[in-house]
Amino acid sequence: MKPIDFRSDTVTKPTAGMRRAIAEAEVGDDVYGEDPTVLRLEARVAERLGLEAAVFVPSGTQANQVAIGAHCRAGDEVLTEAGSHILHYEGGAVPALWGVQPQPLPGERGLLTPEDVAAAVREDNMHNPRTRLLSLENTHNRGGGSVWPVERFRAVVDVARKAGLAVHLDGARLFNAEVAAGVPASTWARLTDTTSVCFSKGLGAPVGSALAGRADLIKEARRLRKRLGGGMRQAGILAAAALYALDHHVERLAEDHANARRLAAALAEVPGVKVDTARVETNMVFAEFDRPALEMVTLLGGHGVLTNPAGGPRSVRLVTHLDLSAADIDESVARIRRALA
Amino acid sequence: MKPIDFRSDTVTKPTAGMRRAIAEAEVGDDVYGEDPTVLRLEARVAERLGLEAAVFVPSGTQANQVAIGAHCRAGDEVLTEAGSHILHYEGGAVPALWGVQPQPLPGERGLLTPEDVAAAVREDNMHNPRTRLLSLENTHNRGGGSVWPVERFRAVVDVARKAGLAVHLDGARLFNAEVAAGVPASTWARLTDTTSVCFSKGLGAPVGSALAGRADLIKEARRLRKRLGGGMRQAGILAAAALYALDHHVERLAEDHANARRLAAALAEVPGVKVDTARVETNMVFAEFDRPALEMVTLLGGHGVLTNPAGGPRSVRLVTHLDLSAADIDESVARIRRALA
Amino acid sequence: MKPIDFRSDTVTKPTAGMRRAIAEAEVGDDVYGEDPTVLRLEARVAERLGLEAAVFVPSGTQANQVAIGAHCRAGDEVLTEAGSHILHYEGGAVPALWGVQPQPLPGERGLLTPEDVAAAVREDNMHNPRTRLLSLENTHNRGGGSVWPVERFRAVVDVARKAGLAVHLDGARLFNAEVAAGVPASTWARLTDTTSVCFSKGLGAPVGSALAGRADLIKEARRLRKRLGGGMRQAGILAAAALYALDHHVERLAEDHANARRLAAALAEVPGVKVDTARVETNMVFAEFDRPALEMVTLLGGHGVLTNPAGGPRSVRLVTHLDLSAADIDESVARIRRALA
Amino acid sequence: MKPIDFRSDTVTKPTAGMRRAIAEAEVGDDVYGEDPTVLRLEARVAERLGLEAAVFVPSGTQANQVAIGAHCRAGDEVLTEAGSHILHYEGGAVPALWGVQPQPLPGERGLLTPEDVAAAVREDNMHNPRTRLLSLENTHNRGGGSVWPVERFRAVVDVARKAGLAVHLDGARLFNAEVAAGVPASTWARLTDTTSVCFSKGLGAPVGSALAGRADLIKEARRLRKRLGGGMRQAGILAAAALYALDHHVERLAEDHANARRLAAALAEVPGVKVDTARVETNMVFAEFDRPALEMVTLLGGHGVLTNPAGGPRSVRLVTHLDLSAADIDESVARIRRALA
Repeated sequence: MKPIDFRSDTVTKPTAGMRRAIAEAEVGDDVYGEDPTVLRLEARVAERLGLEAAVFVPSGTQANQVAIGAHCRAGDEVLTEAGSHILHYEGGAVPALWGVQPQPLPGERGLLTPEDVAAAVREDNMHNPRTRLLSLENTHNRGGGSVWPVERFRAVVDVARKAGLAVHLDGARLFNAEVAAGVPASTWARLTDTTSVCFSKGLGAPVGSALAGRADLIKEARRLRKRLGGGMRQAGILAAAALYALDHHVERLAEDHANARRLAAALAEVPGVKVDTARVETNMVFAEFDRPALEMVTLLGGHGVLTNPAGGPRSVRLVTHLDLSAADIDESVARIRRALA
Repeated sequence: MKPIDFRSDTVTKPTAGMRRAIAEAEVGDDVYGEDPTVLRLEARVAERLGLEAAVFVPSGTQANQVAIGAHCRAGDEVLTEAGSHILHYEGGAVPALWGVQPQPLPGERGLLTPEDVAAAVREDNMHNPRTRLLSLENTHNRGGGSVWPVERFRAVVDVARKAGLAVHLDGARLFNAEVAAGVPASTWARLTDTTSVCFSKGLGAPVGSALAGRADLIKEARRLRKRLGGGMRQAGILAAAALYALDHHVERLAEDHANARRLAAALAEVPGVKVDTARVETNMVFAEFDRPALEMVTLLGGHGVLTNPAGGPRSVRLVTHLDLSAADIDESVARIRRALA
Repeated sequence: MKPIDFRSDTVTKPTAGMRRAIAEAEVGDDVYGEDPTVLRLEARVAERLGLEAAVFVPSGTQANQVAIGAHCRAGDEVLTEAGSHILHYEGGAVPALWGVQPQPLPGERGLLTPEDVAAAVREDNMHNPRTRLLSLENTHNRGGGSVWPVERFRAVVDVARKAGLAVHLDGARLFNAEVAAGVPASTWARLTDTTSVCFSKGLGAPVGSALAGRADLIKEARRLRKRLGGGMRQAGILAAAALYALDHHVERLAEDHANARRLAAALAEVPGVKVDTARVETNMVFAEFDRPALEMVTLLGGHGVLTNPAGGPRSVRLVTHLDLSAADIDESVARIRRALA
Repeated sequence: MKPIDFRSDTVTKPTAGMRRAIAEAEVGDDVYGEDPTVLRLEARVAERLGLEAAVFVPSGTQANQVAIGAHCRAGDEVLTEAGSHILHYEGGAVPALWGVQPQPLPGERGLLTPEDVAAAVREDNMHNPRTRLLSLENTHNRGGGSVWPVERFRAVVDVARKAGLAVHLDGARLFNAEVAAGVPASTWARLTDTTSVCFSKGLGAPVGSALAGRADLIKEARRLRKRLGGGMRQAGILAAAALYALDHHVERLAEDHANARRLAAALAEVPGVKVDTARVETNMVFAEFDRPALEMVTLLGGHGVLTNPAGGPRSVRLVTHLDLSAADIDESVARIRRALA
């Protein structure tokens, strides 16, 4: 029995077309700024996000981290929602690499209110860390793949601006938001100083992310990328896949979203599973079980359905992606029924 | 009109007896470990807290910070209550000096539950910061000078131990807890790996704190003290005042506590002020007003009553101490009435 | 006129065979440890270097840095030759990422003596940084591509061991040393705790390096890789090229070395150029000119010969590699003659 | 036999007059900026050094470190002479606290040349740490208490300015330079952005240093002082001693210098001791023996003469100070003769 892999949209494998693009990539030494495919990708990302410049990096973690390093210095503080990726899945890098203190703000499905942000900005005195950056996430992973409504996003950013904060957007899944909301990714990105996007999640490229933003910040991020060991040589090999993904794999995210809704609707009918179908906005389904999350993950795994814990004690996350079809969804629901029987 | 200063118990001035002790202090070069008064103080603190060793430092911030540095390395995480001093009043030192991520846990008046702590410990994998340390505070400043009930403290520490965490206690006002609870400070301190105490708060010494703990940790803390620039030469000048304070100013904290209750009871009768008198456990009174905290602090200051904001939007903190008598309390209430009239 | 590119052995482009290997690579999600090609590469590197384990990373800088981070903590000191790569070309990462102080030791062509190392180890007291690690480089880039004689290497390592230091080897060009000295790379690597190797230099792969070493250190390095943003998903795309390079591009480094000797011998005959031909041990030629290095680099560039400054004021570095033939060497000498005429 | 203590000028004990000044010090809470004696001292130091502002700190290490932290950010580089105090005696703080890389430049008795500095400034590219600060030391401790000739100092500073570097002066013993050279301390300090001075070395105060400099830098240094735990409450107790020392103990440094010359001249006559009497410029004598430094320190200690190793393998440092008279010098020479007999 071939497992059906809902663990993450990172597990997708390059398609034949993408492999061809990789094999034929025109390359150069990107540490010398001479890889034409990387340069093309960086220009393309900047334009698509409505920002001045972009830099290619090996991972979403590095994209976020060089942004934080470009905005902040040691002793500064970053405001971020309590479930955000930079707090939980980046190895403690915010303090470890930059000496920056995260101030987690409790959100609602990963989204903050302008009031939350306004109240969290500290007075500027020597007792306090200096509040310097607001970091948002769209779609919000732990929030269930939730999309920031544009007006709410703008209101939160406005408050940050008034308080003199810089704004970063962790847009690892920003193209999912674009497709779900039906507005261009630049709608959010233009409001920020820096926005990261990831090619190896829903877009299906094997490796790579980009950070876009103001030119001076991207210049500094490039310097920090070198320090973190993210300077790669003939990186066009990877950038070619990212370009292919931008060309062919954005609009099709709508299928992943449809599959997620299909999965949610079916699971909601399964005894012993609770799913809030109204909350399935993009490619993630959060299911609540009667048993601890880790136990459920193991049980489902034994029945050929791979998942991950979702953060809550009995909450399991299922992510749809390029390598899962509607038939896989239906088969997985059958397997889950058997597992729970 | 001489202002009555409730801003903090740090504002006290050395008494005549304490000044005499300072002037006559036997001294040596403490960087060479040769200051007899410092050595005496360190031995005294260790014994009094039931811990193996102690080191004298210039401030409570440094005492907490060398402890965190001795326990943790970059990429580690410290669990601490959301209002704790190390998060709000130490200049972002936890991440800036050590690369350590604080995970703030919402408490009740600064106190945590064993369940809070157990749930916050992270799984050991490469995505996560390594949960390494639990840092508690007793009495808890932002919690209103609250005292940790011994059994609750023990239960929380037990959970941390089981999870393999080290335990630090920020005991800047631990002697207030001792006097209020009627049990020796060592009751809490013995359960920890390191405990800091402060001589320049309620105890009335001009400068200085100590960190006590396991001998190996204190040895490392001594090294870190040097790195932070806390190695002082003839520090016996300061240690003499601290020894005097331990001899003469511990039991009398009961007066400060009585004055705090007196103040709370009187304020509770003033229109436009809300005080939860049941929550006045030591030397702090938190008063709620109808107006923003900063505005109230200014208004009261204009009427000769110095206070500080307490963290909440309309909450003002008043701290009793060595330099305030019962008569000062009564006079201050009269002034506050006039200010609000 | 097509430029002849001697700037670095990093500029090589993947061959047709290598591109085929890339296109056909079997992949999985390496952040979950499931990329079979990455796993194969890591096992192969560990075995080839005679060390327990290995981890794949995006760059030589990251390989060295995760090693330093695994060995040291903030306040430690690393001994390293004054011209070493970690001091000059890694963006200040040693102190910036880990808080570690480098102690540069003046060497002879990048090589140290046991006496140098013994004298540099500090007494363990609180005034000093803690001497913790010796980091060597083989071949040594700024030393002119010099090879560590095995006995000298062993003697230096022995002194470090006796002083309780860990030993890291920056082996970005270790396979050049293997081919030049005629002994396996493991001869040096086995004597170390960690050794890095690079696939995108002389070996001609587009991207990637590996750190090999004791299993516990590699486990920690893997954690630090994640923190630095070096965790990549379907990294088998890159690992396939590295495996291809290990299969096909190691022995052929002898051609690069022959080309370097050919270049040195010819340049030594050119008026206005000084070359110490006896010092050409691997794939690097250091030429001394009558004019400042940057001016020479520009002049030669204008004549279609790309080079880099070598560190000294009038010293220029020429590196031979996979994409340069003996005919290119001869043509480049003709161009240099014209440039100087 | 009472030991004669040449280990350092830090070992002096407060005089009766100084103790009186301490006992009578007017104090306030300096964390609130209200200690009148600290404010007086800070103004006095700034004026005396010809700089805009000053901040009082517990140690010379902290004075230097908050300066480095105010000038630099992680990834920057500080140029400093190879034997400087910040490299050897501050616990690795330069990288550990700030992520800054020291580039040690070999000097002559601790003094650099303009050429040394010019050659060490790095090109601004992403491979390099950013050269940001030049840190000098006057008098230079490991250089034997050497005084920077004003013109040479100016020339070195000029080079740094042209390269866009900031300049810090570690003036822990700057008043020794003032007295020896017969020019005001401000002669050097005015040329710098920040200058530290120490009250607990030759000046004989028990505890304390100050950092003076541009007002914006001192404001930032004050913030960093808080972070390092150097914020002290009624610090006027210490500042009073420092003010007393400025009033009474500066001119008398001439006696320490005369005693050092007296000691050097006498030691030069002792068989088995080599002293370069021409190099005794201030209060330090470096004596070369036939035996290893640590062995000599032990031997002399057994004969009642306390010394410290001086950095070189057979070199011992003897420092004269407030608590040593000419008679002590003569007695110590007699003891050293006996020890060597």
